[in-house]
Amino acid sequence: MNTQSFVFTGSGGQGVITAAIILGEAAAIHEGLNAVQTQVYGPEARGGATRADVIISTEPIHFPKVVNANVLVCLTQEAYDKFGRIVQPGGLLIVDSLYVRATKNTEARQVMLPMYETTKKEIGNPVVFNICVLGCVLALTWVVTPDSVLSALKTKIAPKYVDMNSKALKLGLDMGEKWRASLGPVAAQKEAAKIKKS
Amino acid sequence: MNTQSFVFTGSGGQGVITAAIILGEAAAIHEGLNAVQTQVYGPEARGGATRADVIISTEPIHFPKVVNANVLVCLTQEAYDKFGRIVQPGGLLIVDSLYVRATKNTEARQVMLPMYETTKKEIGNPVVFNICVLGCVLALTWVVTPDSVLSALKTKIAPKYVDMNSKALKLGLDMGEKWRASLGPVAAQKEAAKIKKS
Repeated sequence: MNTQSFVFTGSGGQGVITAAIILGEAAAIHEGLNAVQTQVYGPEARGGATRADVIISTEPIHFPKVVNANVLVCLTQEAYDKFGRIVQPGGLLIVDSLYVRATKNTEARQVMLPMYETTKKEIGNPVVFNICVLGCVLALTWVVTPDSVLSALKTKIAPKYVDMNSKALKLGLDMGEKWRASLGPVAAQKEAAKIKKS
Repeated sequence: MNTQSFVFTGSGGQGVITAAIILGEAAAIHEGLNAVQTQVYGPEARGGATRADVIISTEPIHFPKVVNANVLVCLTQEAYDKFGRIVQPGGLLIVDSLYVRATKNTEARQVMLPMYETTKKEIGNPVVFNICVLGCVLALTWVVTPDSVLSALKTKIAPKYVDMNSKALKLGLDMGEKWRASLGPVAAQKEAAKIKKS
């Protein structure tokens, strides 16, 4: 990796800003990389889609806003409709299968996963939905290690919530890994090669 | 106001990023302004000073990083030593009087307030130190209303913590107002005029 850019989108309260901050801190504080994390709010932020950007790089980062994302995460249909075109051709588009029904971007590699429903079913508390999403992102990009994310997480939450967050992260990692495994050996190898190159 | 830029600095765990996010959301979601909120992390972020930027404007914002801050907040000596020069001449430098002992910036308007000690004494829980700081910033800049900040806060915290956070905000507002009143009527009027112009 030289530089990878991530855009997390969804509605207020889904925790996309927190997910972006944790990813940025995991990279910078626990892996010695450079990271920039940004929220851009316009008046349309009222009741609309939230967006949080992270750029992670081995080099200094000069412009902090993502123009063409390597990875775009959409957690609502509204967020997809608004930001769907940000992902670059060949990039990774990760959407939640409950909240996003229709995607028209055929140039990105699409990953539609039941992240919300699985979090609710397996953990019982949708508050860690965003951490499950982060697990999926890690499994599909290998941008930082799960340990770095856990270390960053631990500085943000009370000790009693660490266990629930770890479980949500593992849930997402497993879901992402399974998706890759489901491609079959040849496609999965190609996918892994693309991720390494990006 | 056309554009005002704020840089919050301190150590990890003091809540400077949260303060910046709440200020940005208060402006954009509750007052219809534009806002950009950014964290830039380098490898030096490990154990060092944290910095969170907010730009608030009536106009679209094209470059999200603050180069010359109208308002700089420093909550540790290390943060002051590292970022003290970011504040522009005539800008406002707000420091915590327990954590920051020495400031050499003579071109900024300096406000040294016992924000940490007052929060600890009056509320008993230093976790809301950052909200008290935000109250001081509001009292000294009038950038958004306290009500907008409270509305943004309420989307971030559990209902049982709203009361403690409201108290911390009021504590900071009072401290900032007192500082301005202590200038005497003529100086305070000049100060208010500067704020309105900036």
